[in-house]
Amino acid sequence: MKELEEKILEEGIVIGPNILKVDSFLNQQIDCKLIQQMGKEFAEYFKDKNIDKVLTVESSGIAPALATALELGVKCVFARKQQSLTTGDNVYHSSVYSFTKQVTNELIVSKNFIKEDENVLMIDDFLANGQAAKGMVALVRQAGANPVGFGIVIEKSFSDGRSVIENEMGLEVYSLARIAKLEDGKITFVEE
Amino acid sequence: MKELEEKILEEGIVIGPNILKVDSFLNQQIDCKLIQQMGKEFAEYFKDKNIDKVLTVESSGIAPALATALELGVKCVFARKQQSLTTGDNVYHSSVYSFTKQVTNELIVSKNFIKEDENVLMIDDFLANGQAAKGMVALVRQAGANPVGFGIVIEKSFSDGRSVIENEMGLEVYSLARIAKLEDGKITFVEE
Repeated sequence: MKELEEKILEEGIVIGPNILKVDSFLNQQIDCKLIQQMGKEFAEYFKDKNIDKVLTVESSGIAPALATALELGVKCVFARKQQSLTTGDNVYHSSVYSFTKQVTNELIVSKNFIKEDENVLMIDDFLANGQAAKGMVALVRQAGANPVGFGIVIEKSFSDGRSVIENEMGLEVYSLARIAKLEDGKITFVEE
Repeated sequence: MKELEEKILEEGIVIGPNILKVDSFLNQQIDCKLIQQMGKEFAEYFKDKNIDKVLTVESSGIAPALATALELGVKCVFARKQQSLTTGDNVYHSSVYSFTKQVTNELIVSKNFIKEDENVLMIDDFLANGQAAKGMVALVRQAGANPVGFGIVIEKSFSDGRSVIENEMGLEVYSLARIAKLEDGKITFVEE
């Protein structure tokens, strides 16, 4: 997605080995028009897959997931990373190690919101090593629902997340921006 | 907002003294069409206030804040409740006690995303005792920006949050649903 690549080049900051900061339009401040375009892109790509629901993980996945679900005319659900007082025990859960935050999070979603046989599109802000993706698919499979594929805003193509999703899980990935290299403060996209 | 009140009566669950669970359309599963209508309502109400930015708190505030910002044609920003590796030190922060989660959270927002003299509309999913509202206003004031008022999805009018915002802080509150009582599993709205 050309507008996204331009935005990443303009505002993205390489803050360490393989870490890209895009807080100015995705991870803390949200560029709503750009998010809306992302939603249209994902919805267009997956429009023939009979999507029943969009699943994401709090917090940065919520905006692109909502934009996508709105375009598809379905509900979206966000898995939580910690239990709240109102969550209750009726939940699916899986464990995910976060490279960026250097912690293991529990992903939790109520059993009421992913139903057997639903076709679930998963949306996330980043794809790196595929750990979050595995955790999301585990939730969908616990529910007896069908994981359809992944819509990813920014793919770190130098990590093996795409291979994990395509080869280990046999699912499709559609990424709006694919980063080949993050080196010496420079961002290089995969040439397609 | 009539559609919201109907949804609360249909799907809201009173799970304890003064605790309302609306996970099925707001706090975990998101009814995107309803969220879009909320955004239109908030944008219409505050349209003459020259809003430059919408501020909310992760995670449940993000959807209604995004919908509102999209209608107003501005960016939205969500304060985080804990530090992440990419947050850095260049932040405003304030402390908030969460009644629902029974913890004190630090609200953190990058100094890059609230600017001096910006008119900031604050959006949140619930208003109860006004603690989160105080924390959000503290962030805006640290930035030298102007807190314009609050758009609240569900106000617990039996708590003193509205009084805190109107009387202590001198700001306006617009709530889409105002709950007078949560007793014996029954939800009663404020009659207006």
